[in-house]
Amino acid sequence: MGLLAPSRAGSAVADATGDGAYLRALLDAEAALTRAQAAAGLAPEEAAAVVTAVAAEPGRHDPGTLARRARAAGNPVVPLVADLTAAVAARAPAAAGYVHRGATSQDILDTATMLVCTRALEPVLADLARTAEALRRTAAAHRDTPMAGRTLTQHAVPTTFGLKAAGWRSLVLDAHARLTAVRAALPVQLGGAAGTLAAFHAYAETETATETPTETAPATAPAPATAPATVPATVPATGAAPAAAGPDPGTRLLAVYAAETGLAEPALPWHTLRTPVADLAGALAFTVGALGKLAADVLTLSRTEIGELSEGSGGGSSAMPHKANPVRATLIAAAARQVPALAAVLYGALAAEDERPAGAWHAEWQPLRDALRLVGGAARDAAELAGDLRVHPDRMRRNLDATGGLVVTERLVAALTARTGRAEARRLLDTAARRTAEQGVPLATALRDTLGEGRLPEDLAPLLDPSAYVGSAGALVDRALERTVHTPQEPA
Amino acid sequence: MGLLAPSRAGSAVADATGDGAYLRALLDAEAALTRAQAAAGLAPEEAAAVVTAVAAEPGRHDPGTLARRARAAGNPVVPLVADLTAAVAARAPAAAGYVHRGATSQDILDTATMLVCTRALEPVLADLARTAEALRRTAAAHRDTPMAGRTLTQHAVPTTFGLKAAGWRSLVLDAHARLTAVRAALPVQLGGAAGTLAAFHAYAETETATETPTETAPATAPAPATAPATVPATVPATGAAPAAAGPDPGTRLLAVYAAETGLAEPALPWHTLRTPVADLAGALAFTVGALGKLAADVLTLSRTEIGELSEGSGGGSSAMPHKANPVRATLIAAAARQVPALAAVLYGALAAEDERPAGAWHAEWQPLRDALRLVGGAARDAAELAGDLRVHPDRMRRNLDATGGLVVTERLVAALTARTGRAEARRLLDTAARRTAEQGVPLATALRDTLGEGRLPEDLAPLLDPSAYVGSAGALVDRALERTVHTPQEPA
Amino acid sequence: MGLLAPSRAGSAVADATGDGAYLRALLDAEAALTRAQAAAGLAPEEAAAVVTAVAAEPGRHDPGTLARRARAAGNPVVPLVADLTAAVAARAPAAAGYVHRGATSQDILDTATMLVCTRALEPVLADLARTAEALRRTAAAHRDTPMAGRTLTQHAVPTTFGLKAAGWRSLVLDAHARLTAVRAALPVQLGGAAGTLAAFHAYAETETATETPTETAPATAPAPATAPATVPATVPATGAAPAAAGPDPGTRLLAVYAAETGLAEPALPWHTLRTPVADLAGALAFTVGALGKLAADVLTLSRTEIGELSEGSGGGSSAMPHKANPVRATLIAAAARQVPALAAVLYGALAAEDERPAGAWHAEWQPLRDALRLVGGAARDAAELAGDLRVHPDRMRRNLDATGGLVVTERLVAALTARTGRAEARRLLDTAARRTAEQGVPLATALRDTLGEGRLPEDLAPLLDPSAYVGSAGALVDRALERTVHTPQEPA
Amino acid sequence: MGLLAPSRAGSAVADATGDGAYLRALLDAEAALTRAQAAAGLAPEEAAAVVTAVAAEPGRHDPGTLARRARAAGNPVVPLVADLTAAVAARAPAAAGYVHRGATSQDILDTATMLVCTRALEPVLADLARTAEALRRTAAAHRDTPMAGRTLTQHAVPTTFGLKAAGWRSLVLDAHARLTAVRAALPVQLGGAAGTLAAFHAYAETETATETPTETAPATAPAPATAPATVPATVPATGAAPAAAGPDPGTRLLAVYAAETGLAEPALPWHTLRTPVADLAGALAFTVGALGKLAADVLTLSRTEIGELSEGSGGGSSAMPHKANPVRATLIAAAARQVPALAAVLYGALAAEDERPAGAWHAEWQPLRDALRLVGGAARDAAELAGDLRVHPDRMRRNLDATGGLVVTERLVAALTARTGRAEARRLLDTAARRTAEQGVPLATALRDTLGEGRLPEDLAPLLDPSAYVGSAGALVDRALERTVHTPQEPA
Repeated sequence: MGLLAPSRAGSAVADATGDGAYLRALLDAEAALTRAQAAAGLAPEEAAAVVTAVAAEPGRHDPGTLARRARAAGNPVVPLVADLTAAVAARAPAAAGYVHRGATSQDILDTATMLVCTRALEPVLADLARTAEALRRTAAAHRDTPMAGRTLTQHAVPTTFGLKAAGWRSLVLDAHARLTAVRAALPVQLGGAAGTLAAFHAYAETETATETPTETAPATAPAPATAPATVPATVPATGAAPAAAGPDPGTRLLAVYAAETGLAEPALPWHTLRTPVADLAGALAFTVGALGKLAADVLTLSRTEIGELSEGSGGGSSAMPHKANPVRATLIAAAARQVPALAAVLYGALAAEDERPAGAWHAEWQPLRDALRLVGGAARDAAELAGDLRVHPDRMRRNLDATGGLVVTERLVAALTARTGRAEARRLLDTAARRTAEQGVPLATALRDTLGEGRLPEDLAPLLDPSAYVGSAGALVDRALERTVHTPQEPA
Repeated sequence: MGLLAPSRAGSAVADATGDGAYLRALLDAEAALTRAQAAAGLAPEEAAAVVTAVAAEPGRHDPGTLARRARAAGNPVVPLVADLTAAVAARAPAAAGYVHRGATSQDILDTATMLVCTRALEPVLADLARTAEALRRTAAAHRDTPMAGRTLTQHAVPTTFGLKAAGWRSLVLDAHARLTAVRAALPVQLGGAAGTLAAFHAYAETETATETPTETAPATAPAPATAPATVPATVPATGAAPAAAGPDPGTRLLAVYAAETGLAEPALPWHTLRTPVADLAGALAFTVGALGKLAADVLTLSRTEIGELSEGSGGGSSAMPHKANPVRATLIAAAARQVPALAAVLYGALAAEDERPAGAWHAEWQPLRDALRLVGGAARDAAELAGDLRVHPDRMRRNLDATGGLVVTERLVAALTARTGRAEARRLLDTAARRTAEQGVPLATALRDTLGEGRLPEDLAPLLDPSAYVGSAGALVDRALERTVHTPQEPA
Repeated sequence: MGLLAPSRAGSAVADATGDGAYLRALLDAEAALTRAQAAAGLAPEEAAAVVTAVAAEPGRHDPGTLARRARAAGNPVVPLVADLTAAVAARAPAAAGYVHRGATSQDILDTATMLVCTRALEPVLADLARTAEALRRTAAAHRDTPMAGRTLTQHAVPTTFGLKAAGWRSLVLDAHARLTAVRAALPVQLGGAAGTLAAFHAYAETETATETPTETAPATAPAPATAPATVPATVPATGAAPAAAGPDPGTRLLAVYAAETGLAEPALPWHTLRTPVADLAGALAFTVGALGKLAADVLTLSRTEIGELSEGSGGGSSAMPHKANPVRATLIAAAARQVPALAAVLYGALAAEDERPAGAWHAEWQPLRDALRLVGGAARDAAELAGDLRVHPDRMRRNLDATGGLVVTERLVAALTARTGRAEARRLLDTAARRTAEQGVPLATALRDTLGEGRLPEDLAPLLDPSAYVGSAGALVDRALERTVHTPQEPA
Repeated sequence: MGLLAPSRAGSAVADATGDGAYLRALLDAEAALTRAQAAAGLAPEEAAAVVTAVAAEPGRHDPGTLARRARAAGNPVVPLVADLTAAVAARAPAAAGYVHRGATSQDILDTATMLVCTRALEPVLADLARTAEALRRTAAAHRDTPMAGRTLTQHAVPTTFGLKAAGWRSLVLDAHARLTAVRAALPVQLGGAAGTLAAFHAYAETETATETPTETAPATAPAPATAPATVPATVPATGAAPAAAGPDPGTRLLAVYAAETGLAEPALPWHTLRTPVADLAGALAFTVGALGKLAADVLTLSRTEIGELSEGSGGGSSAMPHKANPVRATLIAAAARQVPALAAVLYGALAAEDERPAGAWHAEWQPLRDALRLVGGAARDAAELAGDLRVHPDRMRRNLDATGGLVVTERLVAALTARTGRAEARRLLDTAARRTAEQGVPLATALRDTLGEGRLPEDLAPLLDPSAYVGSAGALVDRALERTVHTPQEPA
């Protein structure tokens, strides 16, 4: 399914978000849940060991087949649990009853999704860090390289390429900070059928309060609700961890499950409290937009007529030998057009009815995966783009001079204001600038004609030098580069 | 990549939109282009035959590998053309030069996309027709089945289930009409590098105006620009169609290419005139919304407390034996949340700069494919849902009676207005209705108490019968069902 | 509320979509409904006359006050009906009972919205027609003006400005056709509380079947259900139209109401069958995208370094005397970024539950209004932009020559292919083009060096002339301009 | 413009986001900029005082007129500056030159927008806090009130209303925390024409380096670049603050301007680094989604057949006396459908080209304002809804019992598993549950028939009591309520 997605093709994030990765995460979530129940005294350690071992075996489940079977219940966990249970039963019949016990499909799929996100964001963050580092070098190298500042597509006043690159980097660091924060808070999911964790109470009670069934070995010494669960048949009842002292087996299990998965522990089951997904949506939309700014500028500055930047290895054309297209920037720009809409779907899914909703949850799956992939592809493209960007200061300078001095009219207004007052200064410059724009006369000449030699500032040349009119650009670059990839954005 | 997409898993539309289907369509587009050039006298028939034969061979190209190689140029056509050219060269060296000749990547990818859409919409339209037919039967069967009309979640006045089903069908027919119209207009794409078709002029000129190159056999009888192209070496120059008489070889080729593909001929190359894609976006968003209305109602009416409808084979739950979830409606509802956002991306891509844009075009690929898939999955789910819907008239009647008569207060206001004037009628009913709502007293009793026996309409019973207060419902059903799947929506 | 909306400020569409215009349309809808009931024999003509007269009086209702009172019921019709009823009662007490009789708020607000859309689209269509006509002139005037064709931001091969302008016009005509079709189908809304038109049955029955109430004058000659309604007190019962012969008073009233408003008659009440709104959404999103394409190109071609176009009266800058910003194109581009998202909300509202929904309907109001306004502003901006666009063929030519001939490498490949075979031709051009690109050597020179004089085509000059390599551009312009504003897009 | 917006009509946030509020903020931004320049030694204190005084005068500027004049330059700052300058000039001619000096329109409009957001979010946060407090009380009061937990529209297992309310509150606190964090970081904007702050350098240099112009009074003691600016004519050059010691007048002015406005100081001018706007977009979309969850549940639970909740003052209907619509929830739900799309537009605006973009910036204005308004209206509606919510525990209990015990089948499976093994337990319950569902036999009876008396758990009654099967609900409520409005969400 990558034919139309060159941006992410072959990337780490593509691997980390494929059907195989989701399947792996689903099995990890199931195995961790059984281990957590064992750790909490609700299942035998042996069952947890068997489930973990079986879940770890590769190649048992085929995503396509699972997807088709998922039509019946509407999600892939139901057929996966059936298969996993059968496989465990084949290994150790008594352990089969502990597979998925007490959980709902959403517990597993949400947990798996958080695992996938955690894993997939690792290469994304690395690519953002690489991008930021490349841009740091670029900004430092071009701290004082003058270029035209452009507003509403027109030359306005000079700026520096260093300032532009520092700005790109600033956005990349903002994205890195947002994704890092969201990633660190991704929670495990566990609530059972309706978010009360009630089944875990039920199993805790029944296992300890009743005789073992005929198909199992006799239980030893049933004990209060916190005692080790009994375990039937071929999984001997040894090694089960003593249950915790906490008063509530549900919330205790939640904590243990979080620990088993390495995810955060939520205050509440979040089947319909979708803060983690919404936060991911925002951070992903932010990231693609941050990279989209870089791409938008590279596309503009790579234009044939502008030529101030070019991609290190521009894409060729089958028809036109001379072309070197800004392909990385193009693919990033394409991603930037898509992710905000996906984020809107995810934000929209916050308004989910009931304890588990009919549609809002299902509508998250693909958009979240697609947003991850688009951002992952864009981050890799950005790292390559930034790492290999060719800067052409000569073209920057030539373009800066192309308007015959118009790019510094603002400065000349300021200079003349001190002599003539602001309104008159503006009027004089308007007249001169119009001549320059319409007749191609250099601004210096037009000014001389307009003002007469005597009213001109004595030393006009430095006032007309674009490279001497970059204001705080250097100072701004310096302070922007003080920020590092690990520092959240702070007001200066 | 179907693990998270149970809605479309295993469907015809899933097959028709997979990487394999796109690859097939890309190869079809390349082969048709060579055939069109042959038909237009710009290439030898033999070359067309070889290219067509080679392109038809299955299994040569791997989508994943192509995707990775697509990173260089930013689209999968470039590596595919390289592979196809090599394969043709191995078969008939002289034919290789005619592969993709004069075209740009976008000509092929756009044409392939139109082929994919044409093909994928066939099962979608069939599923919509099945859905409409099932709903027609349902509406006819329940033309006079009374149920509560609900507004802002509250019982309002009675309606009939037939009218509701006829409304669903009306939307499905609207969707069918829109998709059918858009599908019939999907155009071939051909413009060459910048939409001028110039390369086809160049090849037409050079082939006819010059000596054949040393590597080829002598051409026979070069002729003016419209003559048969010469053909080198191993592809003997026989059978090339005489060129058309038209004055412009580019527009003529466009017409022939359209005919070869079965797609419509556009007035202009549409590399950045994206009407077909935008129209698809609108029709797909419409369709999923139309099905989303059906799903929204089924979800509501399936609620445990309402129970007026149930899906024929509701989805089970791993934890709760009693559950029969409205899974089809859930999956449709999930699709309905996603497609409008994808359509927004596609509409946004209309604003594409230049002759071929850097990003806007690339941003169309996946959203269009995903929208097709979501709509295709939803259409299949809707056909199954509508075909197997269980209707519970008894629950409809019980719910209608549940408010003790409040559902007909509007009618009673009308009846009393004739006796008391409207303001007084409204006041009396407000008083009675409040008693009914707050104390559970039947409305008939409350009215009697409020009005006194003497002022009551003599025959109150029919006025209180919800099934006798459905207005034009039957007449509306009748006229709605007159419309057929092939009739576009017309004002009545 | 126009401070942040310069695009539409002071426009006809702004007036046509303001609170005043909606208020006017709401009152028109109420008055037309009473007239329709009179025409259908369900109300006295005199009541209709009074309601119409009172509704026509300006200045009675304040939108702000109505909005605040609308909080109670959630829509502005409820307080408006209260006010209108009171005003009618003050004029003719007996007529007051006929205000809004049998209708639900949504009947009135939907009908009013359709009236607003019908009215607001008139200036929009006029501006689109103006835009198309200006572009027709431009395309004709520049049918053969060569310019660089640009793809992925890079010069590709030559094209003509005429072809570009013809393409813009083609999209504008597509938009005009779509809006015209949607506008012609906008339907009246009438369904009563739950879409069954039941209240109209009830009033028809009671008015004809019972004695007049004590507060009214005696009715003359009550007749069967289709007879003229009686009318109380101060509105003498004369002139009421004879009721229609049709068997169903509801559907008959629907037809009459449509006629009274000038809107189309829907097959079914469409409280939750939102085809008209969805179709508007699509056509509006299409239109803004079509104009967005024009704007995107103008912005690019107005860039300081490109300078091929400029707006007739570019916007000034407070700080920089020389600037002439492409303001019209900027505002259009801004609109093009917003409307697709609003359309997504409207498409999303298709999936509305029940007979009238709790939120989906309310979520349409502002987005539809905002989309109309954005499109209206953009259409006016486009008409001004197109009517006053300055074209600079000299800059087009200069830019075309800026790459030293690279823009025609595709043609040279074609020319050499006939001599050397395609692969060798491509290799030779690659070598020469690289020298040109990297060292600035003209392509003619580079080719001569690469090929040696003997292998060069004899007459190289015409092959290197960009203006001679525009393929079918002229023919395409000619056929595109044959289409007129009233002709829907057809495959050629 | 409030007729279609009952949600926010008359609210504090409506006032805070109207044209008047934006105008106020624009004038505040201009005045603060002059004061900041005075404080930085770049303008005389007297000029700052005059500008501040004139800017504070109400009623001078008409938004509608400004909007129309804004068409020329594309934003309202240009005409506003012209008017403000004229008004200042009328008061103190010499001060006029300091109005807007060195700034670009975007500096002022961005700063004003941040002021508007800061101000408008205050009532929003207050309403969220009110909502959270009301929900805290509700959750505490109903900590142990059992109700049906619903998943995919069907009863699943019991939960408590306290847990549901605690979940709503948790989302509201998440929203409060996100908005609070974003609001605290909203930065001032200042960069000048292209983000380099160069004009402020120019004015600093010229004012100190040259003689005062003939139209001004002699400057006293010109000093190095950091000295007080001279001031002409009628604004005596006294009181100008000593310039700061910092080496860069641009960044220093940035800090002072931030202080004058009370906004944060950005590290860089952010004309095209739109982190603040994107962060607002995310937080606003989150907030409306959080409230949307509350609304979705209230709408469901208010349904006539469910009746577990009702709004304190439901909205009436003009036609149906008995109706009490959940109007607050409806309006919140409507807002929740709109804001994510607006947020998508704002996230999309991150990808803005150049130093100031042609469209991306302009596309932010209305969507940000509209998002603020929708969220503000929804927050007020939520506060009213939560503060006045009627809970009906009796209906909750009745609904819980409506399935004859099916709601506790999960528990019975657990109980039987200990006796029969899991597979057999599941099979037995499936059989019994089917009888209950299809024949209406109570589950206890069906179980007895299925298992035979002897295999039943001895004390079946407690196992069948839904209120005894709520798991960790109480414990979860307790821990959720520990969090306060000022505590950011933390993993437990």
